Amino acid sequence: MIKRGLLALCMGLAVGATAQAAEQVDLDMVGKIRQEAFHRSQVMDTFSHLTESIGPRLTNSPAMAEANRWTRGKFNEWGLVNVHDEAFDGFGRGWEFSSASVEMLSERVQPLHALPKAWTPGTHGPVEGELIQVDIKKLADLEKYKGKLRGKILLLGEAREYKRGTEPDSHRHDATSLEGLQEFTIPKSAADDRAKRIKEYGERQELIRATNAFFVEEGALAAISISGWDNGIIRVAGGGSRKAGESVGIPELAMIAEHFNPLVRALKDNQVVRLRVNVDARFTDEADQPGHNTLAEIRGSSKADEIVMLGAHMDSWHTGTGAADNAAGVAVMMEAMRILKAVGAKPKRTIRVALWSGEEQGLIGSQAYVAQHFARYPEPTDPAQKALPASLREPTGALQKLRDYDKFQVYFNMDNGSGRFRGIYAQENMAAMPIFEQWLKPFNDVGATTVVSRNTGSTDHISYDRVGLPGFQFVQDRLDYFSNVHHSHLDTWDHAEAEDLKQAAAIVASFVYNAAMREERFPRKPLLEP
Amino acid sequence: MIKRGLLALCMGLAVGATAQAAEQVDLDMVGKIRQEAFHRSQVMDTFSHLTESIGPRLTNSPAMAEANRWTRGKFNEWGLVNVHDEAFDGFGRGWEFSSASVEMLSERVQPLHALPKAWTPGTHGPVEGELIQVDIKKLADLEKYKGKLRGKILLLGEAREYKRGTEPDSHRHDATSLEGLQEFTIPKSAADDRAKRIKEYGERQELIRATNAFFVEEGALAAISISGWDNGIIRVAGGGSRKAGESVGIPELAMIAEHFNPLVRALKDNQVVRLRVNVDARFTDEADQPGHNTLAEIRGSSKADEIVMLGAHMDSWHTGTGAADNAAGVAVMMEAMRILKAVGAKPKRTIRVALWSGEEQGLIGSQAYVAQHFARYPEPTDPAQKALPASLREPTGALQKLRDYDKFQVYFNMDNGSGRFRGIYAQENMAAMPIFEQWLKPFNDVGATTVVSRNTGSTDHISYDRVGLPGFQFVQDRLDYFSNVHHSHLDTWDHAEAEDLKQAAAIVASFVYNAAMREERFPRKPLLEP
Repeated sequence: MIKRGLLALCMGLAVGATAQAAEQVDLDMVGKIRQEAFHRSQVMDTFSHLTESIGPRLTNSPAMAEANRWTRGKFNEWGLVNVHDEAFDGFGRGWEFSSASVEMLSERVQPLHALPKAWTPGTHGPVEGELIQVDIKKLADLEKYKGKLRGKILLLGEAREYKRGTEPDSHRHDATSLEGLQEFTIPKSAADDRAKRIKEYGERQELIRATNAFFVEEGALAAISISGWDNGIIRVAGGGSRKAGESVGIPELAMIAEHFNPLVRALKDNQVVRLRVNVDARFTDEADQPGHNTLAEIRGSSKADEIVMLGAHMDSWHTGTGAADNAAGVAVMMEAMRILKAVGAKPKRTIRVALWSGEEQGLIGSQAYVAQHFARYPEPTDPAQKALPASLREPTGALQKLRDYDKFQVYFNMDNGSGRFRGIYAQENMAAMPIFEQWLKPFNDVGATTVVSRNTGSTDHISYDRVGLPGFQFVQDRLDYFSNVHHSHLDTWDHAEAEDLKQAAAIVASFVYNAAMREERFPRKPLLEP
Repeated sequence: MIKRGLLALCMGLAVGATAQAAEQVDLDMVGKIRQEAFHRSQVMDTFSHLTESIGPRLTNSPAMAEANRWTRGKFNEWGLVNVHDEAFDGFGRGWEFSSASVEMLSERVQPLHALPKAWTPGTHGPVEGELIQVDIKKLADLEKYKGKLRGKILLLGEAREYKRGTEPDSHRHDATSLEGLQEFTIPKSAADDRAKRIKEYGERQELIRATNAFFVEEGALAAISISGWDNGIIRVAGGGSRKAGESVGIPELAMIAEHFNPLVRALKDNQVVRLRVNVDARFTDEADQPGHNTLAEIRGSSKADEIVMLGAHMDSWHTGTGAADNAAGVAVMMEAMRILKAVGAKPKRTIRVALWSGEEQGLIGSQAYVAQHFARYPEPTDPAQKALPASLREPTGALQKLRDYDKFQVYFNMDNGSGRFRGIYAQENMAAMPIFEQWLKPFNDVGATTVVSRNTGSTDHISYDRVGLPGFQFVQDRLDYFSNVHHSHLDTWDHAEAEDLKQAAAIVASFVYNAAMREERFPRKPLLEP
């Protein structure tokens, strides 16, 4: 590791050397964008409607369909064109829940706080049973529970020791933490890791399928897991199965650690614990259904067939209202489009916004969109690869480029919570860095200053990046994204801040406008072919 | 404010000047106490039983009676004498709850997280109604809601903006924060404040009574308040009334801020919000009942009629399991007594432990005990004073000292959560400071180092202090007491740490032993007569 000071010096030189052709930025237009974004913002109206009127938007749920419908309406209202949904195949069934309760009935009476995993069945009215602890880590573990689970409620896994918070819940970047992002970590060879990961993924999927079927066969009533976080937060994603024809298992809930751990201790103490569980949940389709992304455009003028994109995933998990993850991103991207229309922007290139679905299940919507419009790798023949979500697959064979591949410019994504933009990850695209430096300048005064070379992952820009198309995410203030809200029942309106979303919308609007207007094609980094 | 360095110097001189007569500490006995406390501890067994087998212990609830019964059993098992409960008059009725649920039915469906206020009635099955916002700050506000509340569910008060956590959840003292405690703040004249406080208290009580009766008359179904804290934590105490013959009002629940605030916004947005509320709660007595403290002793030898006391309140609020507040204190005080028996301590003076009830409603149990055994002020004649809980009353007339007043030595209390002891508040008893310095020395190595002159309040040692008897509380690491657990549904086993409770028990056992053995009577500070 080289010293910070030296690194900063080297970076300074590098930027100096490549910044000869200064990037043209239409500051008049940026000024208009800022005014509209800061003084006539509608971003909170959008954010509020998505979170509090529509609520959580699990992929393929009725609420997600309503979100597709409502956002199309807003895009039409704002005068965007080519407003439509695009389907992606075979996602699975929709699911929603209305209520969930768990009560301890013995050895004393207490309400316990738990919420269901998505895609697990309801209880069809209250069920009562004795609690039994079950710890299944591999297929062979199932055998020892044979004949023992009928009429029982299952406590899955072990207690987890409470972790004290040693950092503030909420974090905003300062100069030091931003500087820390400037360091690039050269990756180790990933081949071994990858093979191991794929093997483990396959084994885990097999274990889940077998366990679901086993619990149903054995006649267990319901199962309870520990929430992913402490402090009364329910952090939970999916269980069961979204695929028609697969076993959905039994009703399963995630319980706050403060209520789960005492149950473990009571069983260890040989107490007879009886619970009542009542989950009102339902699959909203009989058969697998396609998922739907929502698209809309501002049509370009002289280079209308060249495409600049911006997007965010609109689907969410189900226990909060999908606010930071990711109504924030959707509201910002929609607001950027609204702003561009409001200021009368006439971009040379077409600006297209995408509101993705299926992101939480593995970037499925954006992956499918890129494969349909820009480029794809051949379908794998290896069954282990075939079983993986497309985003986890090893590229097999040469990339198949579609007609729009060369027309594509750049994609900007937002999905790191609702915090203020502090810069952008250049995703190892070194030629993009001086451009972003210039584009960020008019937003230095609202805290967005920093272009870093490193990659960031885990969301929809990766669907572009893996086929060699420029896809980017912004550096954001973390706020309490990873302490309170990510995938939790607290992912709600109140944890976001209007000023941050206004700032983000201004920057996105400006970036996509700049990308739609610049002389040259947006630079691409070399594609790492398999 | 004088500079820290100068203050430290002054304190050093002061201690030097008064520490001539070195305090005798039986280090052989302290060593035995440490061994028993650290290597054969039972404090977590006691703590676990109180929190997880008995559960929350609201004053006069069946669980509190069970706690009285069980702790008497343990005291007898350990060979303590004079094990008994002592009643204090007219506390009120017992109350408990089994379950609570709130569901939003329109304009969309969502389960909301709320728990009932103690001493409010249940709903006797689910009730459904339209939500209406009600803001009552004074008696005159009732009028405007007349005729408007029948069949409605009431949303009490306003939304509260989310406060970001800027400090870590959990805090332990370091040298700097301990040094900060050394500064004594000379009080302003409190007379005006006191009169104002009493007036406000009376007005608040009157408003609560009138509002309870009004909501019942008007036929409202239930009421919902915002929890005292953010981040999904339900922080709630009592509502309704514990007094037979007073209106208990309507079912009332505290809801997490993340679910309450959206309801406020929905109503402001003119949405029609329907809720279903179901609270299973009940008063467990028809008429007011006395409360009960549990007492036990190790009988002294040569000075058996002189009394050293230790204690903690056993009653708790109802939504957690009363762990940090205050099974921790009870377990530590009980463990101190067990240790003293286990090491074969033969104190000259009698050591008496008290497990108080009614603390959460205003130090009622300890106040009554002190009035019955040691000293009391004349009953006030002023109706405003009479209406106050005894702990808030202005002393009226000269203190009436009972027989044991002069025999009493000192009382030690624990009620600042479950965190490690870092020292002791000398409560302005300057003569006690050098004694405590000496007593703490053998525990410097486990982090208890600091004697500070300042007062600390809000718990049962105040019942002694206000009649001029030495009563003390320890300086403790705060942990997450005031961020997560105090009066909240997260006040549970997992937020405590065994090592801290073991350390506290060793220190308390040693302190009370030292107090029971020292030559002279424990020094008293001058009583501030009214």
